[in-house]
Amino acid sequence: MSRPSGREPNQLRPVKITRNFTCHAEGSVLVEFGNTKVICTASVDKGVPRFMRGEGKGWVTAEYGMLPRSTGSRMGREAARGKQGGRTVEIQRLIGRSLRAAVDMKALGEYTINIDCDVIQADGGTRTASITGACVAMVDAFSKMLADGAIKQNPLKQMIASVSVGIYKGMPVLDLDYPEDSNAETDMNVIMTESGGFVEVQGTAEGETFSREELNAMLALAEQGIAELVSLQKQALAD
Amino acid sequence: MSRPSGREPNQLRPVKITRNFTCHAEGSVLVEFGNTKVICTASVDKGVPRFMRGEGKGWVTAEYGMLPRSTGSRMGREAARGKQGGRTVEIQRLIGRSLRAAVDMKALGEYTINIDCDVIQADGGTRTASITGACVAMVDAFSKMLADGAIKQNPLKQMIASVSVGIYKGMPVLDLDYPEDSNAETDMNVIMTESGGFVEVQGTAEGETFSREELNAMLALAEQGIAELVSLQKQALAD
Amino acid sequence: MSRPSGREPNQLRPVKITRNFTCHAEGSVLVEFGNTKVICTASVDKGVPRFMRGEGKGWVTAEYGMLPRSTGSRMGREAARGKQGGRTVEIQRLIGRSLRAAVDMKALGEYTINIDCDVIQADGGTRTASITGACVAMVDAFSKMLADGAIKQNPLKQMIASVSVGIYKGMPVLDLDYPEDSNAETDMNVIMTESGGFVEVQGTAEGETFSREELNAMLALAEQGIAELVSLQKQALAD
Amino acid sequence: MSRPSGREPNQLRPVKITRNFTCHAEGSVLVEFGNTKVICTASVDKGVPRFMRGEGKGWVTAEYGMLPRSTGSRMGREAARGKQGGRTVEIQRLIGRSLRAAVDMKALGEYTINIDCDVIQADGGTRTASITGACVAMVDAFSKMLADGAIKQNPLKQMIASVSVGIYKGMPVLDLDYPEDSNAETDMNVIMTESGGFVEVQGTAEGETFSREELNAMLALAEQGIAELVSLQKQALAD
Amino acid sequence: MSRPSGREPNQLRPVKITRNFTCHAEGSVLVEFGNTKVICTASVDKGVPRFMRGEGKGWVTAEYGMLPRSTGSRMGREAARGKQGGRTVEIQRLIGRSLRAAVDMKALGEYTINIDCDVIQADGGTRTASITGACVAMVDAFSKMLADGAIKQNPLKQMIASVSVGIYKGMPVLDLDYPEDSNAETDMNVIMTESGGFVEVQGTAEGETFSREELNAMLALAEQGIAELVSLQKQALAD
Amino acid sequence: MSRPSGREPNQLRPVKITRNFTCHAEGSVLVEFGNTKVICTASVDKGVPRFMRGEGKGWVTAEYGMLPRSTGSRMGREAARGKQGGRTVEIQRLIGRSLRAAVDMKALGEYTINIDCDVIQADGGTRTASITGACVAMVDAFSKMLADGAIKQNPLKQMIASVSVGIYKGMPVLDLDYPEDSNAETDMNVIMTESGGFVEVQGTAEGETFSREELNAMLALAEQGIAELVSLQKQALAD
Repeated sequence: MSRPSGREPNQLRPVKITRNFTCHAEGSVLVEFGNTKVICTASVDKGVPRFMRGEGKGWVTAEYGMLPRSTGSRMGREAARGKQGGRTVEIQRLIGRSLRAAVDMKALGEYTINIDCDVIQADGGTRTASITGACVAMVDAFSKMLADGAIKQNPLKQMIASVSVGIYKGMPVLDLDYPEDSNAETDMNVIMTESGGFVEVQGTAEGETFSREELNAMLALAEQGIAELVSLQKQALAD
Repeated sequence: MSRPSGREPNQLRPVKITRNFTCHAEGSVLVEFGNTKVICTASVDKGVPRFMRGEGKGWVTAEYGMLPRSTGSRMGREAARGKQGGRTVEIQRLIGRSLRAAVDMKALGEYTINIDCDVIQADGGTRTASITGACVAMVDAFSKMLADGAIKQNPLKQMIASVSVGIYKGMPVLDLDYPEDSNAETDMNVIMTESGGFVEVQGTAEGETFSREELNAMLALAEQGIAELVSLQKQALAD
Repeated sequence: MSRPSGREPNQLRPVKITRNFTCHAEGSVLVEFGNTKVICTASVDKGVPRFMRGEGKGWVTAEYGMLPRSTGSRMGREAARGKQGGRTVEIQRLIGRSLRAAVDMKALGEYTINIDCDVIQADGGTRTASITGACVAMVDAFSKMLADGAIKQNPLKQMIASVSVGIYKGMPVLDLDYPEDSNAETDMNVIMTESGGFVEVQGTAEGETFSREELNAMLALAEQGIAELVSLQKQALAD
Repeated sequence: MSRPSGREPNQLRPVKITRNFTCHAEGSVLVEFGNTKVICTASVDKGVPRFMRGEGKGWVTAEYGMLPRSTGSRMGREAARGKQGGRTVEIQRLIGRSLRAAVDMKALGEYTINIDCDVIQADGGTRTASITGACVAMVDAFSKMLADGAIKQNPLKQMIASVSVGIYKGMPVLDLDYPEDSNAETDMNVIMTESGGFVEVQGTAEGETFSREELNAMLALAEQGIAELVSLQKQALAD
Repeated sequence: MSRPSGREPNQLRPVKITRNFTCHAEGSVLVEFGNTKVICTASVDKGVPRFMRGEGKGWVTAEYGMLPRSTGSRMGREAARGKQGGRTVEIQRLIGRSLRAAVDMKALGEYTINIDCDVIQADGGTRTASITGACVAMVDAFSKMLADGAIKQNPLKQMIASVSVGIYKGMPVLDLDYPEDSNAETDMNVIMTESGGFVEVQGTAEGETFSREELNAMLALAEQGIAELVSLQKQALAD
Repeated sequence: MSRPSGREPNQLRPVKITRNFTCHAEGSVLVEFGNTKVICTASVDKGVPRFMRGEGKGWVTAEYGMLPRSTGSRMGREAARGKQGGRTVEIQRLIGRSLRAAVDMKALGEYTINIDCDVIQADGGTRTASITGACVAMVDAFSKMLADGAIKQNPLKQMIASVSVGIYKGMPVLDLDYPEDSNAETDMNVIMTESGGFVEVQGTAEGETFSREELNAMLALAEQGIAELVSLQKQALAD
């Protein structure tokens, strides 16, 4: 019983984090989890949404999109249909919520960090790649703000990263690619901090339900995978 | 250190399930989790979405809404704004996905069950009350289809129910009401089958992250609460 | 020649007005005209629309909706379609216009009363039930404002109520239910004050035109019916 | 106490009906009620809406618009705002409903008549002018269909026309222009057939309510005015 | 080889410019290029868009629309579809850009000129007729502003006008009507000032490409045609 | 008087065309004109739009978008705003029209080629880079269709390419970058075939008008630049 890619159950795909991928954004990262490729940018804007003004705290928000032909068959362009789909809305809310957990909003002050995650090639795990890449882009944006004197203290509390785990043909596996994801019995996205705290856990049974034991096995894989991802984020930031 | 409502940490709010609440739908339930009140209807439509036609399988989908003044201050009406909000989209996708896990689509045949969950009064936990009530409405709709001869076999695989759990002031608690929910460090929604399988687990840290131990404590509370809810669903269906 | 319900031509359906139906709104009424059931809430907001600011006058506006399965077959949810239908727009404009006729805007001061009428079960006459119930909800909201000291003088000029009349199989009848409404030759909605002044009269021929005599017969029925409704509103408010 | 225009209380504005105003539509009329000018076209399309197919009956529907600068100050263009306003929706539903009352749908057969009423200059009474002009355009379209052999029998049951009446400074008046309309206590739109049957009556109190006597006085003015309008329609059609 | 209309290759259609066509706008023109008829209004609004405030400069913007039955077969109404089509957007951007080239924004001061071009009858060349007519409407609006004392100096730098040219059956022709336009190999819209400067040139090959020589021949026709149109604009303004 | 980039007036930016940039689309190209970078994909879909069915001819259409932070300051995401902006609509119509000029629709048969041009980094000339890159992507898609046996004959009539030219500080220049584009007196986009025929010419004066001589100078630069671009396209396709 083996994985379509031949990977070990606890093996991540090759992960690549390219900083400064485009030139305009304060932070710009191309993140690759195998064939999944996402451009993550962090843009700094002065000011916060109306309901937060005057409290001296910052805000982090995210938007997510897929290029129409990032997928096997072309998807309609959301801008042309005039509406973001339910899956898009769900994912971008998750990205924003996760990244906010990494930030000390007082230290950020009244600035908004706009995260954009745009998938240029999809092969499963676009949301976990997005979160992992966006955190690096956000760190770069904070460095730029510190260098510019916009802020005095780094608002990053700690790195966060994310990975998917699942049950594929009865076997708990780490970092599902599309052939696995579309056949998994259970799919779970986990977001954790570098110190091992959980930020978000979202597990969904597809068809069959999952047990406490399976849940535990998946969480163990996630903990290991996220530790590796955080280490890769730090290497990228050290370059 | 006690809960605002004075409840025990593992105590559900008073739960009430009123069947046949309105007269037109094949299944119609008013579900109350304390002050949270949701009208759940299950409507049977012949046919399935285009992409599924001819496969002999059924479909279950859900929509969710809140009356503008179901909440403490009035929310804008989504129909007037011309757009369902991100939270609404996220919740109705969760409800649909959860209920599909309870149904044998082959046995349902080419029918669509449209679930509508409309919150008339909100006090925390509207999505978990919705899922719990909608499952009962769906069972009533299946009974009606069986009685009418539309289907020959009950498509229900097993009951599902849902409850929220969280960490409130450091204490794991069951079935959060609004005063708890808005101050909880962690909020988790759990959906399970009557036989104890997990359908969906969604845990989110608000501010502080949560640990494996806290996760386990919350899951234990959820398992107990859902067992009670399934028992209440069955009582209601037996009346 | 008799009515499907067996009622006398000048007989209202059983009318029930339940105050404080939900707990958050300043006024909250469940109004029932037979099987037609509408939740009417009145919400008080500080401030008025931009074009009225600084004139010291208040504003009353209304929104109307139907739960998707309030009707015999499920209607698409307007929030999901991204657009309120023409009938909805027409009805909510009527409700708002009618209620404004009951209010002394100077006495209200710069507050907006948002009326929401949400039909949970429909059997004809939803707009007239909405107006009749919403007026009671608005009176409760005014009482709350007076008790809170937000206003010093009751802005209610006089109660208004509304009923439908029509020509069914050649016979003028009061308060049409759905079986009558869908077969009536003429359908007329009348809104009046408690002192017998007309606020709005909307009569529409369906198929055959109507004569001055028929119009007069319908207006006489409406005058009687509205007198009864005002009396029921006052009883409800006295409880 | 006189009218701003110096007209008698029962005096219409100069009415002008120009047929074949534009060249493409099957019926095309410029209707003028004083300074109110509306282009009314009737377009013939083969087929009927989906819900009516196969019944051998026709359909009449209407859309209404105002050029942005048809009014004293420029209104936003509805196409640019992406939404027809509530008033527009209300008016175009009224126009369609009224014209359907003039047509024998069996005789029309499975054709749709699309009425477009576009106000190029507004001075009160645009909806009544629209209905009056559109009926003439529709008659021209029927003549063309008969000439082309598309239908064998004229589907027109009888002409309809429409006029506004109101109470201005306590005085019942016919055919209100903008200075009257914006100051009237009551405004009523009446649609009648050439034989004197009522198609629609819509009376609205602005501020003060109106009495049965006032209603009767307004209806008498409307009956007289509509008789004159029908006569002008027939003259135009005879040319 | 002759033109469907029998015109000479370098012959404009009969052009008619009627000023003060409607009564409310500061400038209102009916422009006719043969059977193409467009109502062009210029509306003066105090203030400029947010991004320009405080710079002491004015703004000119344009919107374009077609009545649904201005064309041979009825087009859907953009306001009803909730969206302006791509062609509409393209044309109104062209009209606005062209007219801005005619105006000294400093002399205009912080006023916005809203141009509305509404086609009531279409026979090819609606955008060129719109620009030619709108310039006259704008000049009238400037005159009114000068007369009212809103501005002290005429902001018109010089007149602009526009005409289409094309290659029809191998022959360069001026001012294409619909039968030519729909069969032309190349269609070009040219906007020039009265002193012969180019404001915009938009040439499009339909099917076959065009050569430098053909381009030159078309530009020569355009220069001649625009000189004639400017002369007609000036005559109209002199009346 | 020199260009901000130090380029000669007739010098293109470094152009790079990377084929097979992403893995799913039938044709996928990253095109770079200096710092302007656009992902162009060509997707093959069976079938054509409804209005063309049964004629045995194909169709080519295009959509265009910019990643929110492809620009110096972040632009709102069109999918989130629910509407494509006017500039987007204008550009994607131009791309589609231009590419259709390169294709023999009979040879293509009833297939639709969907072109997507997504700007990941913008520095002027995004539409001309898009057209130039998309043509290469389309050629790759045609090769794949030929290899798969979907078509028997290559539908490409000839290559097309596009470049911008303009008048910058009085000097005609080729291939404007953003610093030039935002200060140019005139900006012109030219699309030509490899054999030197014009497909589209769009020249716009910004502020000052342009003369016939300037137009000629710009066209000469465009002819030279497009010849170079076609040669680069062919080199890329030969690799």
